[in-house]
Amino acid sequence: MFKLENFITNFDWENLLIKGGVITLKVIGILFAYWIIRRIGRKILDRTFNNILHRQDITEGRALTLHRLAENIFSYALVFILAATLFSVLGIPVASLIAGAGIVGLAVGFGAQGLVSDVVTGFFLLLEKQIDVNDYVTVGNFDGIVEAVGLRTTQIRGFDGTLHFIPNREITSLSNHSRGNMRALVDIGISYEDDIDHAIDVMQQACERVAKQTSTILEGPNVLGVQAFGTSEVVIRVIAKTVNGEQWAIERQLRKAIKEAFDAHGIEIPLPHQVLIQKQSESQQKSLS
Amino acid sequence: MFKLENFITNFDWENLLIKGGVITLKVIGILFAYWIIRRIGRKILDRTFNNILHRQDITEGRALTLHRLAENIFSYALVFILAATLFSVLGIPVASLIAGAGIVGLAVGFGAQGLVSDVVTGFFLLLEKQIDVNDYVTVGNFDGIVEAVGLRTTQIRGFDGTLHFIPNREITSLSNHSRGNMRALVDIGISYEDDIDHAIDVMQQACERVAKQTSTILEGPNVLGVQAFGTSEVVIRVIAKTVNGEQWAIERQLRKAIKEAFDAHGIEIPLPHQVLIQKQSESQQKSLS
Amino acid sequence: MFKLENFITNFDWENLLIKGGVITLKVIGILFAYWIIRRIGRKILDRTFNNILHRQDITEGRALTLHRLAENIFSYALVFILAATLFSVLGIPVASLIAGAGIVGLAVGFGAQGLVSDVVTGFFLLLEKQIDVNDYVTVGNFDGIVEAVGLRTTQIRGFDGTLHFIPNREITSLSNHSRGNMRALVDIGISYEDDIDHAIDVMQQACERVAKQTSTILEGPNVLGVQAFGTSEVVIRVIAKTVNGEQWAIERQLRKAIKEAFDAHGIEIPLPHQVLIQKQSESQQKSLS
Amino acid sequence: MFKLENFITNFDWENLLIKGGVITLKVIGILFAYWIIRRIGRKILDRTFNNILHRQDITEGRALTLHRLAENIFSYALVFILAATLFSVLGIPVASLIAGAGIVGLAVGFGAQGLVSDVVTGFFLLLEKQIDVNDYVTVGNFDGIVEAVGLRTTQIRGFDGTLHFIPNREITSLSNHSRGNMRALVDIGISYEDDIDHAIDVMQQACERVAKQTSTILEGPNVLGVQAFGTSEVVIRVIAKTVNGEQWAIERQLRKAIKEAFDAHGIEIPLPHQVLIQKQSESQQKSLS
Amino acid sequence: MFKLENFITNFDWENLLIKGGVITLKVIGILFAYWIIRRIGRKILDRTFNNILHRQDITEGRALTLHRLAENIFSYALVFILAATLFSVLGIPVASLIAGAGIVGLAVGFGAQGLVSDVVTGFFLLLEKQIDVNDYVTVGNFDGIVEAVGLRTTQIRGFDGTLHFIPNREITSLSNHSRGNMRALVDIGISYEDDIDHAIDVMQQACERVAKQTSTILEGPNVLGVQAFGTSEVVIRVIAKTVNGEQWAIERQLRKAIKEAFDAHGIEIPLPHQVLIQKQSESQQKSLS
Amino acid sequence: MFKLENFITNFDWENLLIKGGVITLKVIGILFAYWIIRRIGRKILDRTFNNILHRQDITEGRALTLHRLAENIFSYALVFILAATLFSVLGIPVASLIAGAGIVGLAVGFGAQGLVSDVVTGFFLLLEKQIDVNDYVTVGNFDGIVEAVGLRTTQIRGFDGTLHFIPNREITSLSNHSRGNMRALVDIGISYEDDIDHAIDVMQQACERVAKQTSTILEGPNVLGVQAFGTSEVVIRVIAKTVNGEQWAIERQLRKAIKEAFDAHGIEIPLPHQVLIQKQSESQQKSLS
Amino acid sequence: MFKLENFITNFDWENLLIKGGVITLKVIGILFAYWIIRRIGRKILDRTFNNILHRQDITEGRALTLHRLAENIFSYALVFILAATLFSVLGIPVASLIAGAGIVGLAVGFGAQGLVSDVVTGFFLLLEKQIDVNDYVTVGNFDGIVEAVGLRTTQIRGFDGTLHFIPNREITSLSNHSRGNMRALVDIGISYEDDIDHAIDVMQQACERVAKQTSTILEGPNVLGVQAFGTSEVVIRVIAKTVNGEQWAIERQLRKAIKEAFDAHGIEIPLPHQVLIQKQSESQQKSLS
Repeated sequence: MFKLENFITNFDWENLLIKGGVITLKVIGILFAYWIIRRIGRKILDRTFNNILHRQDITEGRALTLHRLAENIFSYALVFILAATLFSVLGIPVASLIAGAGIVGLAVGFGAQGLVSDVVTGFFLLLEKQIDVNDYVTVGNFDGIVEAVGLRTTQIRGFDGTLHFIPNREITSLSNHSRGNMRALVDIGISYEDDIDHAIDVMQQACERVAKQTSTILEGPNVLGVQAFGTSEVVIRVIAKTVNGEQWAIERQLRKAIKEAFDAHGIEIPLPHQVLIQKQSESQQKSLS
Repeated sequence: MFKLENFITNFDWENLLIKGGVITLKVIGILFAYWIIRRIGRKILDRTFNNILHRQDITEGRALTLHRLAENIFSYALVFILAATLFSVLGIPVASLIAGAGIVGLAVGFGAQGLVSDVVTGFFLLLEKQIDVNDYVTVGNFDGIVEAVGLRTTQIRGFDGTLHFIPNREITSLSNHSRGNMRALVDIGISYEDDIDHAIDVMQQACERVAKQTSTILEGPNVLGVQAFGTSEVVIRVIAKTVNGEQWAIERQLRKAIKEAFDAHGIEIPLPHQVLIQKQSESQQKSLS
Repeated sequence: MFKLENFITNFDWENLLIKGGVITLKVIGILFAYWIIRRIGRKILDRTFNNILHRQDITEGRALTLHRLAENIFSYALVFILAATLFSVLGIPVASLIAGAGIVGLAVGFGAQGLVSDVVTGFFLLLEKQIDVNDYVTVGNFDGIVEAVGLRTTQIRGFDGTLHFIPNREITSLSNHSRGNMRALVDIGISYEDDIDHAIDVMQQACERVAKQTSTILEGPNVLGVQAFGTSEVVIRVIAKTVNGEQWAIERQLRKAIKEAFDAHGIEIPLPHQVLIQKQSESQQKSLS
Repeated sequence: MFKLENFITNFDWENLLIKGGVITLKVIGILFAYWIIRRIGRKILDRTFNNILHRQDITEGRALTLHRLAENIFSYALVFILAATLFSVLGIPVASLIAGAGIVGLAVGFGAQGLVSDVVTGFFLLLEKQIDVNDYVTVGNFDGIVEAVGLRTTQIRGFDGTLHFIPNREITSLSNHSRGNMRALVDIGISYEDDIDHAIDVMQQACERVAKQTSTILEGPNVLGVQAFGTSEVVIRVIAKTVNGEQWAIERQLRKAIKEAFDAHGIEIPLPHQVLIQKQSESQQKSLS
Repeated sequence: MFKLENFITNFDWENLLIKGGVITLKVIGILFAYWIIRRIGRKILDRTFNNILHRQDITEGRALTLHRLAENIFSYALVFILAATLFSVLGIPVASLIAGAGIVGLAVGFGAQGLVSDVVTGFFLLLEKQIDVNDYVTVGNFDGIVEAVGLRTTQIRGFDGTLHFIPNREITSLSNHSRGNMRALVDIGISYEDDIDHAIDVMQQACERVAKQTSTILEGPNVLGVQAFGTSEVVIRVIAKTVNGEQWAIERQLRKAIKEAFDAHGIEIPLPHQVLIQKQSESQQKSLS
Repeated sequence: MFKLENFITNFDWENLLIKGGVITLKVIGILFAYWIIRRIGRKILDRTFNNILHRQDITEGRALTLHRLAENIFSYALVFILAATLFSVLGIPVASLIAGAGIVGLAVGFGAQGLVSDVVTGFFLLLEKQIDVNDYVTVGNFDGIVEAVGLRTTQIRGFDGTLHFIPNREITSLSNHSRGNMRALVDIGISYEDDIDHAIDVMQQACERVAKQTSTILEGPNVLGVQAFGTSEVVIRVIAKTVNGEQWAIERQLRKAIKEAFDAHGIEIPLPHQVLIQKQSESQQKSLS
Repeated sequence: MFKLENFITNFDWENLLIKGGVITLKVIGILFAYWIIRRIGRKILDRTFNNILHRQDITEGRALTLHRLAENIFSYALVFILAATLFSVLGIPVASLIAGAGIVGLAVGFGAQGLVSDVVTGFFLLLEKQIDVNDYVTVGNFDGIVEAVGLRTTQIRGFDGTLHFIPNREITSLSNHSRGNMRALVDIGISYEDDIDHAIDVMQQACERVAKQTSTILEGPNVLGVQAFGTSEVVIRVIAKTVNGEQWAIERQLRKAIKEAFDAHGIEIPLPHQVLIQKQSESQQKSLS
């Protein structure tokens, strides 16, 4: 606060108007330069990544990740250089203000700590290849497709179209759903009166028909057996291993195929059942007797 | 606390009444000047933003965001200058009090830290274009339309009309629903007795009719297949990609169209089903036999 | 603790009784002065705010807010001056005790930090006009009408009559329900067998009748369409924009009007439905055959 | 720890037995003095508060609060003086141990911090009159009647008879249910087939009869209108403003009066409804045809 | 860590074997002395507390609390003296290691802090008589009968026989169910068709019969009135004030007495009710017409 | 970090290859010595504990606890000595690196703090006999049988066979289910129409039969009375005190015995009841009339 | 920040272009060297672990764990050496920047702390053999098969194919499901009307048949008895001890075997039951009478 006081008293108030014009011109020049450098820099980045990366043995996701990151670093660097230049032109000694051990320095230090934490976490995210652009990930309460891994924030596009901005330091534990084959799992209930062995046979045949029709199933769907006793049904579980990203489609196909096979063999997926025991209210019993 | 003591003993109690008049006049003058500068400053801000911003290639939301922010910074700057001037006139050396390493300085330092944290987070929110005025966002437990992004707080107008004030530092992870196309998703149940293929055909035709009538659907609604087996219904999922903000309207139209198509083809959306098994209570069985 | 030791050994135990009388008299005098100053001060505050504020262009809520705050600051200032005077009369050097770098000073420093945090947050609450007396707000788990914004605590009167005291520092995110127009929202279910278009027509007409009768609806209630498929009903949504504070009354009127219109046109709001399938228990089947 | 070592080596082990007798006598004397002073002090406190407070314009709750607090401060002061005296007699230099910058001092400092935090919070609780003995309050998960506000802990008697001890520092936000009039609220459901206007008339008349019979209703119970559509009933809301503490009694009377008025006018509070649609299972359909 | 290095190099490795015998003998002697002192000490403690405490005006719970605490302090003191002696015999300078400002000292300091926190909290628990052995208390998620309040931990015996060990510092807010009379509360539902006044009369008479039979009811059970409208029943509340610990027995007696009185007067506690409306499915309606 | 730099520049890179052989031999020798000492040490530990502990008056659980702990301390000590020796052979001055006040030292200090915290908590766990091998305990979300209490972690074997590793510092509050007799509790519902006294008699007789057959019941099972009114049943509670670990077996026996006694006396455990009131839909009423 | 300033002013801007070429060449060389060393290093690691580990008495999981860890450490070491070399070539004195006590150093220090915490926890995870590759573990909200335990993160492959990355410091309490035999547990309900002893006999026989057929059951499945009274069923529990990983398969077999045995003996697993009491609505009663 007293820095402000000093600043106000030391500031050259007299030449303010005369200097004003000069400074304004400088600022405009700087902004123009910023504008041009930004345009050129982006073009160079785009070309470099388009040319070099496609002919090398880097996956497409990795290439995109690095491209976005490079753009992000470039624009941050530019903005900070712009700000530093402008403060310098305006004669505000930002650096010494921050370096001072006063309240401002302390406060900025804590701010910087958060920033460093973001950058460090982001660095390890990339170094350990935990995350790439176009991966389907779950971070905390957010899940979706990674759009960009930046210096400070990661952008995740939710399946409903929402764009989530998550500071890197908030990404501690991470679930990546785009690394390796996935499991398709279908639980289906049959009636307590149906024969379990017969139902399993019918399901297994249906599963094998599906497996023949599609090329995205890697381990043929297997009927595991009686998973649980539900209130009105005996639950039987089927699992399969599929190509990444195809698990939902396979689950939908398996559900349809098993339902149709059950219809053909007269096996019902049971509706909720309830056993009713009739009792007459006392008053009516009296009137009846 | 002992500062207070010193202050009380050092304060010029004798000339209090004489000085009182002078100070009162000064204060009134300062308040008046504050009043005028605030009025003029606001007008200038309004004009500048109305003139310059409309003819440049900045989105309307961005322009509004910067306008509100400029007003906010201007009024904060003014209030702090006013306070500094008043304290100076009253002879209270606020700056040195705060700069002292005593309890007051420490306490104010922590307060300032929160303030810096708000300003820094706000700065990055704007630099990374995470948020603009008129965006529909979700921040923690609050969601609604952004009204202003200030130096210290962001204002979000909930859909029910409530105005939420959120300190910037509380905005860590952020979901922006106004960035890109959105998904419309409708889950509809059919009876276990209905033919799945037939129902899917009817739904697909209804979807295509809706797609023809409206221009806000970007990817024609597709019937994905059997999403789940419900207690009384087979759930079938439809998804579409729509223009941002139109997803709810499209969902409503799809629901109505599919319901009408089902009515026309005699497919029912099933009510909850239950299978009842009658059993007579033992006492009644005896009376019957 | 050793301060206590020193205090006990240094204290003038011999003149205790003689001094006792003098001190008692002093204390009584001080308490009496406190009593009078408090009474006079409060009267002056009341008059000032009643006179000055009513003829200026400040909203009533703002005027009340400042009035309560002034009273609160006045009584705090008075109590602290009273305490300081009393300690001085009793010869306890509170200031130097606190200023010492010992355990007491440290502990009090932390206490003061909480206090400063309260005052700073309260200051920004008022500066940013987030809150005024008579606003309906939600703060954390509490909601109600603001009664006073004090230096340290904010008082909120719950709708059931409870008075909530909330330290200002606990007020981070804040929802103010008294800033601008509010939305009235009514969800109503119709039977799966009813014609959706017909029901929407009837509802729209009922809405327009309500809109004509009342002046607090700003945007005529609109029937949006099929919001969801419930277990036994098709849910149709109506929304309207109303004057602040009137949203609940409008919702009640809309519900009544739509119910009456439905009764007149033979449309039912459906009770829960269930489809029953009778099956005989095996034992009974045997006895029947 | 090494302090202990020093203590053990420096302690006068040789004269232990000789000194033992002297010290034992001293300790007994001190304990006896403590016993007498405590008895006398309590009597003086009781009388003072009984005499002085009753003839002044302090509310009874406030008087009780101060009485309990005075007792609490008195007994704390006595115990600490007792402990200090005993340690002094036994020759243990507690003060210098604590004042040392070693581990013990640090640890005790943290302990003291919690204590100061309790005392400071308690001080503000009383200064701001947030809480008085016999108030009905809610603090965090505890609610009940305040029994005492002490230097360190507040005692709250739950309605089931449990005594809750809550450290003052845990009392941040506080809900006081004994400050001003309370609201009585009754929600009652009528059948979808009943006439809403008729039911409201009957309820309003019943409310007015209750209002005439009791003097604790301040604002006559008003029937607000249709609050919600339940699954089987139309919910109608009644609210009234009552004297503090009488809200539950009034609610009970209103419920009884409205139920009796409904009985007299043939309006039923509806039981849960369900619409049943009978369907025969396929096997039975076959056997019937 | 480097302390360890120093220790290893400085340790007198050469005379290890020769000294080994001497040290072993010393250790055995010390352990034997520890064994005897512990036995004797415990006996003395037992006798002292049995003799002195029974003839004084301390409650039994308080006496037990102090007895357990004395044992606990005694055994802790003994163990620490044993450890200190053993380390001294083995020539390990623990005290100076800990007193050093190195990593070990820091780490131990934090450990000691937790210990001091436990001891301080325990001290206030006892000083404020919040807790005594044989009290029924709730602390956080644990409730049961207090078995011992130690220097570091409090032991609570759950009603299912589990022994909970809770560090004293974890005991912040505390609910003591053994301080004063308790409330017995019984909510009973009657049918919507029953006469409320008649049911209340019957209940009041049953309550008074119970009150006459038992001596543990302090304030005769009172029927308060209609507490709520349930889905199938009108809920009527009865409360009584009982001797501490007898509330559950009284509640059980009240439940039984009211049930029997209801049986005698033909008032039923209603089972869940449901109103059924039969509708035929469309297909069957067609076949019927 | 700069330590690394220094290390790299100072390291004797030239003689690397020549020294390599020598060091490799040393390392192999050290590893071999480690291997032998570890084997011998474990055997000695096993024998010592088997011989000494069985003939002393320590419980088996305590003996096992100390055995596991001794093994754990031994293996930790060995690994750290091994590591220290290896670093020394490789010429890495770990100790001075850690002792330096640089970043590495700070970071390791925090790590060490966690370690000390684990060791201290473990020490008190054992000193206060809160936990022994083979005790059935609940710690936070984990419960099971204690397998080992180590220097750093406690191992608990869940009942499903899972082995939980819990750092000692995470063990704050602890529930030990193996300390003293346990309670068996059975809640059983009877019909609202059954005679309560008769049912209680039948239950009490069944309980006494069970008590005679088994020797693990310490306090004969007692029927307490009417615990609650359920929706369809009057709940009656039975409790007994049993030998530790036998509570579940006793509960199972009591359930079976009471069920059989109820069957013999014609008392039913009621199934869920519901009262149905038939109402015809309006359309059908019209067609009937 | 001012470091940046200094850096900018001190940097050798003039020779930038001339030096550019040299540096670029150096960088390419370094990257190439990095590429080759990485390839060779990985091959050596693979061979070493394949050769040495297979012929020693280390479990396969342990061998894999160490292999993955070695690869991880190797690649980390390489990347840091690469970065250090590059910075050195570019003339950026990273080490001294970090070592400085400025803001950057502080911020990096905190980052390093997180890193050290990860490494230390990982070290103890391995030393205490809490976790091995191919173990099935639960860590916090994640469970699955361990893929790798790295220096900084542990990778767990969920059963649905998702790869979870968890920083080691987040792994506090850990449940390892691959250590020892597991329990198979099946709860099965029988009707209230069935004979409990008969059902238990049938179940026990079915269990023994399963035990004979499979070799993975270690302790023959035992029927424990009546575990609970459900709303419509008497729950009977069966448990068995199985080979690790076979518990689910055994549970499925037991469920199927018991269901088939029940079918053979006419014991039903009961569907939900409900007792219905018919009552006529008042209006109908009137029309009937």
